[in-house]
Order: sequence, then structure tokens, then C-alpha cells
Amino acid sequence: MGASTLLHPLDPISPTEIRTASNILIKVVDLLEPPKNEVLAWIANSAISVDRCARVYYHVATSPHLWKAVINVIRCVVVSQEELRDAQGPVDYTEWERVHNACNTHPDVLTEIGKLKLPEGAKVVNDPWSYGTDDGEERRRMFQCYMYIVLNDDPEANHYSLPAPFSPVFDAHTLELCWIDFLPLGTGSEITETQPWNAAHPVEYSERILGSEYFRQDLKPLQILQPEGPSFTVKGHRIAWQKWDFHLGWNLREGPVLNNVTYGGRSLFYCVSMSEMTVPYGDPRTPYHRKQAFDLGDSGFGLTSNTLELGCDCLGHIHYFDGFRCDAQGSPVLMNNVVCMHEVDQGIGWKHTNFRNNNSSVVRDRQLVLQYTATVANYEYILAFIFDQAASLHIEVKATGIVSTMPSRQGVQHEWGTTVAPGVMAANHQHLFNVRINPALDGQRNSIIYEDCIPVASSDPELDPFGNAFRVKPTTITQPGGYQLDVAKSRVYKIINPDHINQISGKPVGYKLHSIPSQMIMMGPSTFNYKRGVFASRPIWVTKYRDDELYAAGEFTNQSREDTGLAVWSERKENVENEDVVLWHTFGLTHVTRPEDFPVMPAEKMMVSLKPTSFFEVNPSNDVPRSNQKFNKSRLTDCSGCQRNDLRI
Amino acid sequence: MGASTLLHPLDPISPTEIRTASNILIKVVDLLEPPKNEVLAWIANSAISVDRCARVYYHVATSPHLWKAVINVIRCVVVSQEELRDAQGPVDYTEWERVHNACNTHPDVLTEIGKLKLPEGAKVVNDPWSYGTDDGEERRRMFQCYMYIVLNDDPEANHYSLPAPFSPVFDAHTLELCWIDFLPLGTGSEITETQPWNAAHPVEYSERILGSEYFRQDLKPLQILQPEGPSFTVKGHRIAWQKWDFHLGWNLREGPVLNNVTYGGRSLFYCVSMSEMTVPYGDPRTPYHRKQAFDLGDSGFGLTSNTLELGCDCLGHIHYFDGFRCDAQGSPVLMNNVVCMHEVDQGIGWKHTNFRNNNSSVVRDRQLVLQYTATVANYEYILAFIFDQAASLHIEVKATGIVSTMPSRQGVQHEWGTTVAPGVMAANHQHLFNVRINPALDGQRNSIIYEDCIPVASSDPELDPFGNAFRVKPTTITQPGGYQLDVAKSRVYKIINPDHINQISGKPVGYKLHSIPSQMIMMGPSTFNYKRGVFASRPIWVTKYRDDELYAAGEFTNQSREDTGLAVWSERKENVENEDVVLWHTFGLTHVTRPEDFPVMPAEKMMVSLKPTSFFEVNPSNDVPRSNQKFNKSRLTDCSGCQRNDLRI
Repeated sequence: MGASTLLHPLDPISPTEIRTASNILIKVVDLLEPPKNEVLAWIANSAISVDRCARVYYHVATSPHLWKAVINVIRCVVVSQEELRDAQGPVDYTEWERVHNACNTHPDVLTEIGKLKLPEGAKVVNDPWSYGTDDGEERRRMFQCYMYIVLNDDPEANHYSLPAPFSPVFDAHTLELCWIDFLPLGTGSEITETQPWNAAHPVEYSERILGSEYFRQDLKPLQILQPEGPSFTVKGHRIAWQKWDFHLGWNLREGPVLNNVTYGGRSLFYCVSMSEMTVPYGDPRTPYHRKQAFDLGDSGFGLTSNTLELGCDCLGHIHYFDGFRCDAQGSPVLMNNVVCMHEVDQGIGWKHTNFRNNNSSVVRDRQLVLQYTATVANYEYILAFIFDQAASLHIEVKATGIVSTMPSRQGVQHEWGTTVAPGVMAANHQHLFNVRINPALDGQRNSIIYEDCIPVASSDPELDPFGNAFRVKPTTITQPGGYQLDVAKSRVYKIINPDHINQISGKPVGYKLHSIPSQMIMMGPSTFNYKRGVFASRPIWVTKYRDDELYAAGEFTNQSREDTGLAVWSERKENVENEDVVLWHTFGLTHVTRPEDFPVMPAEKMMVSLKPTSFFEVNPSNDVPRSNQKFNKSRLTDCSGCQRNDLRI
Repeated sequence: MGASTLLHPLDPISPTEIRTASNILIKVVDLLEPPKNEVLAWIANSAISVDRCARVYYHVATSPHLWKAVINVIRCVVVSQEELRDAQGPVDYTEWERVHNACNTHPDVLTEIGKLKLPEGAKVVNDPWSYGTDDGEERRRMFQCYMYIVLNDDPEANHYSLPAPFSPVFDAHTLELCWIDFLPLGTGSEITETQPWNAAHPVEYSERILGSEYFRQDLKPLQILQPEGPSFTVKGHRIAWQKWDFHLGWNLREGPVLNNVTYGGRSLFYCVSMSEMTVPYGDPRTPYHRKQAFDLGDSGFGLTSNTLELGCDCLGHIHYFDGFRCDAQGSPVLMNNVVCMHEVDQGIGWKHTNFRNNNSSVVRDRQLVLQYTATVANYEYILAFIFDQAASLHIEVKATGIVSTMPSRQGVQHEWGTTVAPGVMAANHQHLFNVRINPALDGQRNSIIYEDCIPVASSDPELDPFGNAFRVKPTTITQPGGYQLDVAKSRVYKIINPDHINQISGKPVGYKLHSIPSQMIMMGPSTFNYKRGVFASRPIWVTKYRDDELYAAGEFTNQSREDTGLAVWSERKENVENEDVVLWHTFGLTHVTRPEDFPVMPAEKMMVSLKPTSFFEVNPSNDVPRSNQKFNKSRLTDCSGCQRNDLRI
């Protein structure tokens, strides 16, 4: 027998398990989520044994293709093994480094670097990017290496401020240079031979480079004190806080995953996860037209997770979770502090003042935040699952980091982006996220409905003589598919359990999705951008649950030519009403870049929420102790030196 | 000479000024905002004297009409005085109390109360509501008194849990009972004679009534420590914080108002204020069809402001501002702590990790929050102006309090709302807010533009052979009017100064509006709901600045029959390009009520933001000191008792 069975079936892959899987085969090793029926059986009775399996993506010397194996790490057997002739696996650290080194030492690349005639001490770094696709024919595993001039050895020197005007493409298997793309520097697609570098100052964010005089001096400390410690408890990956109870999974692709989420002992969700994210760029000039990252499928929000630092990423009392990846030899590598958990005070949760006597009841909005940061080369995503005391679950996304930069002839202004520093253009792009919700409201069978608010007068003037009435019109989704939002109708999607009726409202118990109405992918259905990310063409998707259908754009996105996820699953003709159903929400932002986004952009925040509706009989936070000074210990500012005009009665 | 001229021209009305104005006339006394050119002259040279004037709404015994006067409180002269034959002024405390008492003591009302056969000790309270309108003919000043049964003397007993089935209408001038509306209890409009009360339990939120066993016990304290005090400074109503500098006005109608907002010494906004808010209800049954509050114009977000309490409404170091209203005798009444100001930590402001060496730069998102709570009878609005270190200004609205309740026959379910407790229906409604922005980006002459993101391929396939390109298409608004959002085009409205060009991007300096796409008012153009609140029919409005044009629905909304604000001003044919221009944003929510909204609803949050775009040459928060443990003093949770599965390597 191999690894321990003491683990929850959805616990992240453990070092022992990685070793067990890697003793057989190596490369990208992660937990293969067990079948749901086995997990549910285990949750009902943890004496039941659930085999734990690892999914392994790997390459072998004799084949240019991706191989995939499933290893049962309990029984130490290979469950399945196949050569995938038409898929590229995600990027792994080792190959990334090999390509990086191959690029930086290739004589042709060095020749181009030489033509730049860089000053003494300057170095050139390169970021191997997912190649994307533009012809559907290319089957080699390729990386597009974007190169940058770095003048400073400071570890926080901006690596993206001085983009070089050429971009080699490498074959990751052979490490051969396929060709060098010369980057257009003007408004059109014209390229020229590499010219000596037109010296420019990098725009820096390093505290050391900027020097202490650069910084504002008047920010005073603000600290969170929790004299009795935090309000949560943790057992392994099981977390309990304020009537919430859930299992925190974690994997290299999705990062943290919420499972078996309950509130007050009632089942809410089998799973909530960040499923995919794609970033198509809007610049048609070669090679930028291929630029379209799938930051979960290509890179992995888990694999690129930062090691979080105490006092930097959160205030207050912090609990951290670790993860594991494997190295090229198949040995487990500890990824320290990849998820942090802490409580925050988010202002007032609810308030009412009886104006007849001025007595106020105030409840504060205490929240539990599970947060992580994924660094995908230049860019950062800060993601969080946030729980509150009114039984709402929020999924927060902050987009920050350094925008992808392109070299530009100085003085040229581009219509595909904004000049963020002299000689540096940041192309406009979209970020389209997909969050996956497998609900289990009071049981595994739920329905998805949407409700529109519709005026009555035009259809029924007798009922509504003054024209003020409006109705809430529900539509039940019976078939899988992609569905639209409609702000003009205040359309709200709801998860309901049609078999459980709220005794007060007479309506089925439900949770509503507070969606983010967003511009969907702008590239048309004939483009590879669209075909690869069909999930980004509609804000709402509904499918019937099946094991292994986790990723909105399908399992393999790297150099993909089509979406093998929602594009396929949503086409099945099957019932999704009062079924084990999955709700997917695509949202995002079209980022028209600004100089203010450079060197590092202020975080752009988006929030999706799941809120109860007829799930409870009263405000679920009615039982939160009222806010008072004894508990909160606020301080009146010392107003010495303050002139208070308005008191001179 | 009267009141002091030491005040900033936009300081709130002072007690002395109230006395000066009231010695002449009495009723609702507030600052009349001085002409902008005088204020700008004073800002340039505060030795210039700006007369301060009070605006007074009042009634005289000899007339049923509203009177309005402007009193120069410096020179002690009446500037103007007029009888308004076709307008109703806002509700004032005194008349509200008179109507309240008239209703609760009127024999016909007592007769109806008697028919309820209430248990010993029960009392009936009433809320005189703005009458609204339904025929355009009624000229009396009316209040619709909604009545509620209260069984408990506790000062926080829920006053809205047991709505009585009748609603008297009173004339506020004569205190005559006009009639009693009997409230429909079934799905249709049928009414019956008052029946003995069908006993029900109120749903309570009072800590005392609920008793300590009701409350969750596991919430541990979380306190904000600011060992060196807050980072702001205050002089009278002038506030400076982290490169921001502004004047905080305050008046009975709008509550706090931001004036002369600058960042790093550069002018941003002459004024930002909450301008209006209307709540039409979607229930066609008489008298509910008339229900449409204008909570600023009818009641006033300043007048209904709560006295905020230390340790309840905010954590940390709090600075309070007071306000003044007048009483029936014209004496100033201190309104203590109507606005609180404090700093919050809103998580990560920006972050970048150099993945080559894992060095992270993190800046936290410290914010300055100016917050207040308006209690308009049953309902609460918590509003805040929030400043951040990336030069963004946010306007936050939290809707909370107790939903307006209607009596219902027990067991009946209504299509106009949701049963939130046995016998209690909460009708669906809309909240439509309007925020007013008078920009002054690097000067008083600005333009409003909007930008759409548009795919290129269909119009220019040669330029975009792979179909991935998109353009940002700007449209300049040249004429006043109401304008649309367009999520499908990621439309963004911007304020720009066309005469000031950003040296990096080559674009005019600007601020963009992060709007909230919302369902607009559902009632059609022929309804009074629409005619009274035309501002709520379009999300974006642009007008040319004129003194005294402050309120989106016009000066008088109480029992109004038409919008005399944006509906009129937006029709003027005049240039608004590169002019003194005003941008208005209408946003809100359609509230389909839930049992979870009762007894007090968890706050529903909305946020409008103004963010720089090409206003600065780099991220304005690049100079914020980096986040570190020495400054932030976070704590690692003590994990004794935690089983950490993943460490068993």
C-alpha cells in the first residue's frame, strides 16, 4: 500500500503521494479529484475508504507528444496511461527554465542582443509565453519568448519597462530556435532589423531604486488587534467559522477550491472554484495577434501562487496553507504559505435606528477571507473566497501587477494600446474569468432559474391603472447551454431546490448569483480567440454535473484550437432541472491601459456573490452580537489643533 | 452685521446664522450655496468677502402655500421672499410630529384601532409618509400615515413587524383627517372593514428581547490600533489626507458634500454630492400605487442623519463632524456626530512579485472614509465618500434597515412582493440614486466623453486578418442630455480636460466614471413615477453648470408632479464641450425582497468610482511605502490543535 488514507478525499496532493506517483512517472503531478459519489459516501461515513489518485502529465524521450497517466497512490498502480497526440499540457517550471536558458544563450539571439549595443552591465531577460495559435496546423510545443532589457541588479528592478524589439520562438521539446519574430515599433506591421537601443529610463517600483525621498512620509500605522485570537478553527483542510463549515482543497491548476460548503449544518455547495481565465490581446500586429493566455489552463493559479508574507499580504491573525508541486525528478517541492486565511471587518453589516428614540442596532460585517496571489510572469491576480455572517459567499478578484509591454518607437501613439512610458506600449486586452459553482442546496438536486423584473401596465392596464406595478417573472433552465444577463430587466440567476419550500415566503429555498455584467470576448466566432475560449462568449452557463468536468475551456488550453469544455458540455441534450447541476459565470474586464497602470497597476477589483434568497426565514445575521465600544475599542481622534467652526454657537 | 465671515463660503450653516435667519422667518433653514464664481474667487484669495446666505422654507398662517426666502446672514437682510403656489417643501420635524400626534389621537383613527381589539399593553405607532401623487390635482399638503402595532416597550422593538390594515391621510396644514385608506390584505384590491387583529409574533432584532441565548457566541474581538493616530488633518471643514485636500460641506438635504477636491495640489472636482434618490414601489394596489419616496428631496439625508456612536459605526480612530438644524422656534439644534471620518485598510492596493527571485512589492490599500447614516423612517442608507492612495474617489451606498411592510392576510402569497413574516408582505421596489459630479480637472473647463470598445475585423479585415483587434472609439458629448451605458461595448464615461495633454500617453488628462449598470425606473413615461423622477430614466446625464442646479429631480419633490431638475436642464440647447460641465450618474437596485431581509436587511452595497486616466504619468500610489511586518504587526495564528495534513512528508 502507498500513501495514507487518513486524508480527506479532496485534500491536496501530499508529498508522499507525489513520490508514489513520481516513482512511476514524472512531470506535472496533482490530485485527480475522486468521483463525487465516492466523496459524498465518504462525507456520510468517513470509515469508507476512497482511493486517492494522482493525475500526471509527462513527456517521454521517444515521443513529441503529451502523455497523461492516472496513478492510484493508495494501491500503487497505474490506472490509465495514454499518449495525447493533439493536446499540449500546461507549462511546467522545468521546461520553462530550459526554454528560458536556451533562448538566452542561443547564438542568433545573442547576435540580436549584440545589435542593441546595450550599456555595460545591462542584461536581457526573457519570458517564454504560451505561443497561442493562429493557423490550427502547428503541432510543435512552442514558446514565444518576449525579451526585456534590465539595467539594474536590484531584485525588484522592473523587468518589463524596456521591452526588446525581437521575440524568438522556441520548440520546447527540441529546444530549437524556430524563428525570431521582429516586433513592429510603429503603428503598422512594418518591422526593421534590430537597431541600437534608443536609451530610455526604466520606470521603477523598487523601494531601493526609488530612494526614501521618493515616498510619502505621512502614512501612519494601522494594525489589527485580535486579543482573543481569530474566530475560526482549522483541522487539516477543514475550516469552521461563524456557522460556515467547508473543506479547502488546493491544486496546481485552480489554486484553492471550496468543497462541501455548509452553513448552520445545511448543505450549500458541493464545490466552488475559479475555473478558467483567458486574456486575449486586441493588437493585430504579428506576433501579438497570437497573444491569448489561459492563466489557469496554461500556467495554473496554484502553480504560480506566491509564498505569502506575514504583515504584507494581510493584517491581523493569519493562518497559512501550504501546497506541493513536484520537480523534474518527481520529488515533492513544498510551496509555503500559498493561501492565507484571516478575518476582516468590512464596515457595517446592517443597521437600524428607531428614530422615535434614537436607539441604534448595529451589526458589523465581519468576514473570513481566504486569499492567494498568482503571479503569471508580469501580471498578478489576487483572488479570495470571502465568507460573511449573513450567509453570503463572495468571490473576489483583484487584477494587479505589471501590464504586458510592447516596444514602440518613441513618440509614436498606438491605437491598440496606450503609451505607458517613452518607448513602451501596453496593448488593450480583456480578462475573462469563469467561476464554477456546483450547488447542493439542501441536497444534490437543484435547478437554475432566472428572474426578470417586468412592468405590468402594457400587458395588463386594468390590474395596474397607474402604471407603477412590476412583476418578477421566473424562467427555469431545463437544458444545458449558455445564457445571457439582462441589466435592463434586472435579471438575476438563482439556484433553487424546488423540493424545499421556505415556510415564510412560500418560495423554494435558493441562493442568487450577484453576477458582474461584462463585455464578453470581442473576437468573433471565426477567430481562434473565440474558438479556444467559447466559455468567454456568454456570461452564464448551465451544465449537468459529470465527474472531471471542471475547467471552462477544457482540460488542455495550451496552444489549443478549440474549447473542449463548456463549448462541448453545454451542447448535450439532457435535463438540468432538479438535477445535479453546475452553474458557471463568466465575467471580467476590458482593460484599456493607462499610464497610471505603470509600473505596477493599482488593483482593479471585481466581486461575484452568492446570497441566500428564501433559504432562511430571517436575516441570518440577526444573531450576530451588536456592535459596541466595549468590544471594538475605537478611539476619538485628539482634535488638538483642530478648529471646529460649527461649535461656535 | 450678522454672522461671522471667518467661515469658508461652503461651510455648513452655523447656529449664529440659523438664529440670524430665523429671527426674521422660521421653518427649514439651511445654507444657500453661494455663486461658484464667488467661491472660486474666495479660494484664490480668502481675504475676499463672500456673503453667506440662508435658504428658508416656511409657512405662514394666512396661506396654505410654501414660502421661500433667502436671507443674507452677514448683512441681515432678506434678499428674496416668495410664495410658491405649486410646490411642497420638504418634511420638517415639527410638522411631522404634529401630523403623527393628530393621527394617533384622532377619534376616527382610534375607532379603527379599537376594532383591532389589541391585547393589553399593545400600542399603535404611525409613520407619516410623503403622500406622493396620483392625479395631478391634489394641492393640499398631505401625509399618508402607515400604522403599526407594537407589543413591546423595548426601545428597539421592531416597529414594522405588525402593520395595521388601515392608513389615514392627513392634511398637514389643517391637521384634518382627509380620509382613511383601508389596506388590501389579499392579492387583489378588495378591502374590508377593520377586523380584530389576527395575533402574530413580531420578528424582533432587539438584543434584549431576543435574549443572550439567541446570539452566536464565537465571534472574537477585532480592533484597529493606530499607535501614532490617524494620517489625516482637519481644520474646520477642510480635510487633508495622503495628497488629497478638500472641503467638507454639509446640509440638511444632501448630507455631506465634497468641494474643491484636489490631489497633490491639482484641481479635480469643484463638487461631488449625492443629489437625489427615489424609491418607487411596484405594488398597484391603492394606496401603495402612490408610494414613491424621494429621500433627499422629501426628507433630506442630512436632516435624517444619525448621531454616530464611537465603536459602533466605525473601528479605529474616529473624527466626527456635527450639523445643525433649527427647531420650530427657529433656534439651532445641534446634530451631533452626523459624519464620521476614519481610515480603513482595504486589503492589497497593488502587488508585484518578480518570479525570478520571488521578491514581492506590496502596497496596501489604505482609504479615508467619510460616512453617515440616514434613517428615513423604517429604512437606512449608509453612505460614504472614500478616498484612496491611487487618487481614486469612491462613492459607496449601503442599503439596510427595515423594508417597508404591508399587512397581508395570513397564508396569502403576493405577486408584488414577498412574505417576510406571517401576515407581513414587503413589496418589491426600486432604489434609484443620483450622484452629481461637477469636475474641475486642471481647471473649470472640462468635457465629457464616452469610449466604446469595438472589434475591428468586420470593418477592416485587412488591418486585422486574424480578427483579434479592437479599437477604443471616443465620442464627445457636445449637448446636454441623458445618455446610455452599454455593457456589451464596455462603455466608459470620462471627464477630460482637452487643453491638458498627458505627456506620456498623449491623451487629455482625465478621470473615468466606474458606473453601476442598473435597471432604470420601470414605470413608463406616462406615469407620475416617471414624470416626477425623469432623472431615474437614464444612467448618465450631462448639463452645463449653473448655480443652484444641484438636485437631480429639482428643488421640490414632495408631492411633485414633474421632475424640474435634469428633465429641464438637460433640454437646454447649449454647448457642454470644454465648458463648466456637470456629470450626473443614476444607479440603483431593484429590490425583490427576501425573508432574509427581515427584520433588518443585511446591507446591500453599491460603489461608484472616479479613477484617473492619463491624469498622472505613473501609478499615483507608486510612492506609498511598501507593506511590511514591522509596520503592520500581523500575527501568525497559534495552530496548537491544528492538524496540518500536508506537512507529513
